[in-house]
Amino acid sequence: MRMVDLIVKKRDGNELSDEEIRFWIDGYVKGEIPDYQSSAMQMAIVFRGMNKREVSTLTDCMEHSGEVLDLSSIKGWKVDKHSTGGVGDKTSLVLGPMVAACGGVVAKLSGRGLGHTGGTLDKLESIPGLSIAIEGQRFIDQVNSIGIAIAGQTKSLVPADKKMYALRDVTGTVESIPLIAASVMSKKLASGSDGILLDVTVGEGAFMKNMDDARELATIMVEIGNRLGRDTRAVLSSMSEPLGFAVGNALEVKEAIASLQGHGPKDLMELCYSAGSIMLVQAKQAKTYEEGRKMLKEVIGNGKAFEKFVQMVEKQGGDVEYILHPEKFEVSKNVIEIFAEKDGYVQSINALEIGESSMRLGGGRATLDDVIDMSAGIVLSKKIGYKVKKGDKLATVYTNKKESEYKPVVEDIKRAFVIVDYFIEEEPVIKEVIG
Amino acid sequence: MRMVDLIVKKRDGNELSDEEIRFWIDGYVKGEIPDYQSSAMQMAIVFRGMNKREVSTLTDCMEHSGEVLDLSSIKGWKVDKHSTGGVGDKTSLVLGPMVAACGGVVAKLSGRGLGHTGGTLDKLESIPGLSIAIEGQRFIDQVNSIGIAIAGQTKSLVPADKKMYALRDVTGTVESIPLIAASVMSKKLASGSDGILLDVTVGEGAFMKNMDDARELATIMVEIGNRLGRDTRAVLSSMSEPLGFAVGNALEVKEAIASLQGHGPKDLMELCYSAGSIMLVQAKQAKTYEEGRKMLKEVIGNGKAFEKFVQMVEKQGGDVEYILHPEKFEVSKNVIEIFAEKDGYVQSINALEIGESSMRLGGGRATLDDVIDMSAGIVLSKKIGYKVKKGDKLATVYTNKKESEYKPVVEDIKRAFVIVDYFIEEEPVIKEVIG
Repeated sequence: MRMVDLIVKKRDGNELSDEEIRFWIDGYVKGEIPDYQSSAMQMAIVFRGMNKREVSTLTDCMEHSGEVLDLSSIKGWKVDKHSTGGVGDKTSLVLGPMVAACGGVVAKLSGRGLGHTGGTLDKLESIPGLSIAIEGQRFIDQVNSIGIAIAGQTKSLVPADKKMYALRDVTGTVESIPLIAASVMSKKLASGSDGILLDVTVGEGAFMKNMDDARELATIMVEIGNRLGRDTRAVLSSMSEPLGFAVGNALEVKEAIASLQGHGPKDLMELCYSAGSIMLVQAKQAKTYEEGRKMLKEVIGNGKAFEKFVQMVEKQGGDVEYILHPEKFEVSKNVIEIFAEKDGYVQSINALEIGESSMRLGGGRATLDDVIDMSAGIVLSKKIGYKVKKGDKLATVYTNKKESEYKPVVEDIKRAFVIVDYFIEEEPVIKEVIG
Repeated sequence: MRMVDLIVKKRDGNELSDEEIRFWIDGYVKGEIPDYQSSAMQMAIVFRGMNKREVSTLTDCMEHSGEVLDLSSIKGWKVDKHSTGGVGDKTSLVLGPMVAACGGVVAKLSGRGLGHTGGTLDKLESIPGLSIAIEGQRFIDQVNSIGIAIAGQTKSLVPADKKMYALRDVTGTVESIPLIAASVMSKKLASGSDGILLDVTVGEGAFMKNMDDARELATIMVEIGNRLGRDTRAVLSSMSEPLGFAVGNALEVKEAIASLQGHGPKDLMELCYSAGSIMLVQAKQAKTYEEGRKMLKEVIGNGKAFEKFVQMVEKQGGDVEYILHPEKFEVSKNVIEIFAEKDGYVQSINALEIGESSMRLGGGRATLDDVIDMSAGIVLSKKIGYKVKKGDKLATVYTNKKESEYKPVVEDIKRAFVIVDYFIEEEPVIKEVIG
């Protein structure tokens, strides 16, 4: 078998056999197939796509390219949640403790942020002392003891994805539904959970810009997961504006704390209730989504979800004082307020622009080597559909950068708000549930 | 400027600016842009194409990636001919001396064969003693002295094409009209001739399988050449069967000798007359194609074309005795005849199959490192449209391989002939002239 023949086959719109996909991925991981052939294949896939069998085989090959976690010594039905990435997305910090407080077993491996989207690990690390490097038996013990752990992926997990993603990132082949699906699902499957809940974000601030693409991606991921023996379901959620009000690591942790204490933004909480109720069904803790939702509202109301978060932070070595007294989090040197210049209704808040602005303020990484300023970011005061008056505060900007650096960013944030003089309805955060 | 952004731009169907194309090619030749990005770009070009300006700029960048020949010290209008490759294509060996005998100045750089197509250099080297390594002043002196030289490309010519072609070959990106056009034209332009005649072959044995693709390729190459200041024209010629009767290096040289002596196959001679008459107009030796054709027939009739070939072989160190007495060429140990198994008409002779068979008999290279057996090959006895009776000889196979090796090849050659029981018309070799 020659790699060039497989590239030509895909280029010409033909299906690759399971054996051919295995030849590619095994050879690529071993370094026998060079980057330049893999990148040509990936570009051919961008144009020609893959059918369900092909994506399923690709996922399976990638999953087994390295270590596969065995979580069988953890009691109960393990559930995991994955978001395809968004701006202001602190869902895992709120949802994980909520589900665990209801008896769900949350054994979650998370990633870091890159570009305009933040990562759960970075957000967690803004809590002084907290470690995300909990591996092996320690991870299993923590989940068995308190029902939840959120850790970083070990290096030996899915090496194929690490190598392929790095290559896709520099060869213009990130935007491919089959490649995104295989990347996400290979990691989730290798992480060993019994149930997987996918949050596929859709809108300007997400990978999937429209509902058709989002639905296609969600459908194929759900099918792959079920085909490979896991209870997999998905929600499609709106990313046409940032989720909640806070964007930036410590700022989002503070919003997560408030949310767990019952003061969460409407869209974030709705996402947590919808996703969480599905996870509770997957974890066999609720019979119906309705029942799950009721349970989740209860643990928010009685403080048990917040308590679970405190437990988790403590177990992972974090300073609990910061959770109990969030005013302890360091505030950036520069705090700039942005005001509305006219009356009207907020029609849109460009999430991509807000995400990139947060990154430029120091809150994110342009490259994997960048160091994050945990205190930097943006807190919105208004969301889509809000009525505003001239002079109302639209957002507060936090940064330790110099004025000459943050000034153009502040201008961009101002421009990210579109205010019109007619009534705008709020957008529902959950657009569809699949599975 | 970042290469990944240019890849995404092309992937999404947008035009690359001149500056962007230059950034890619310059960076790639210098090794600053890695193979894996260039292969992704090439695959994006396979799907998205390039417009005339883009191909023209790409050609220009590639041409100037290395040495550019200055032929200004050669008197007269220099003309060059290039074929996009065929089976049994010994045209340059016949056409070059014909045009030179009519006063045209032929300063030709040729290539080697790979896969099912042979190369002029390999064919010439089957003449004992002949050298194709005539460079610099010696090349110029020979053309000034006898009006013709056929030499190998120097290594310093068009390094971008060498690097890009090697990459295309292993990444499934050979079949792209803009990339083929830029590859051919960058070499022809760097070779310094004033006039360029392109022979774009079309059919099963050629790169271009159908007339639409062949016409598109020819048209864009003619436009690039004229845009960059050379008189460029093209013929589209049929490669639905091998050209002439002989396929294989020494076998083709013998056919070329016979052709120059007035005993050439009809299709080969028609191609030489058509292409040569255009070249004579480009070389300012004839006012019209008709006049050119008359001159060419004359130099075949009076032996001057043959004489020119003898001169060239002598100048390049070849043993002229082989040209004057072609029976001196070594004959393969094994000579196998193939006979018709039924009466009828030859409907087709699969040129790709014949070309690959010749390679497998020892007459060509599967990889650039293979050594060629100059005596190996196939001589057809019948061409498309010929009436055959059961038992008539269809072809003679020459090889030094063992019987177990050549037997399956002989079977494949037999299968390459399709004989039907109804009348089949001969196919004209020249299908169209452009420019």
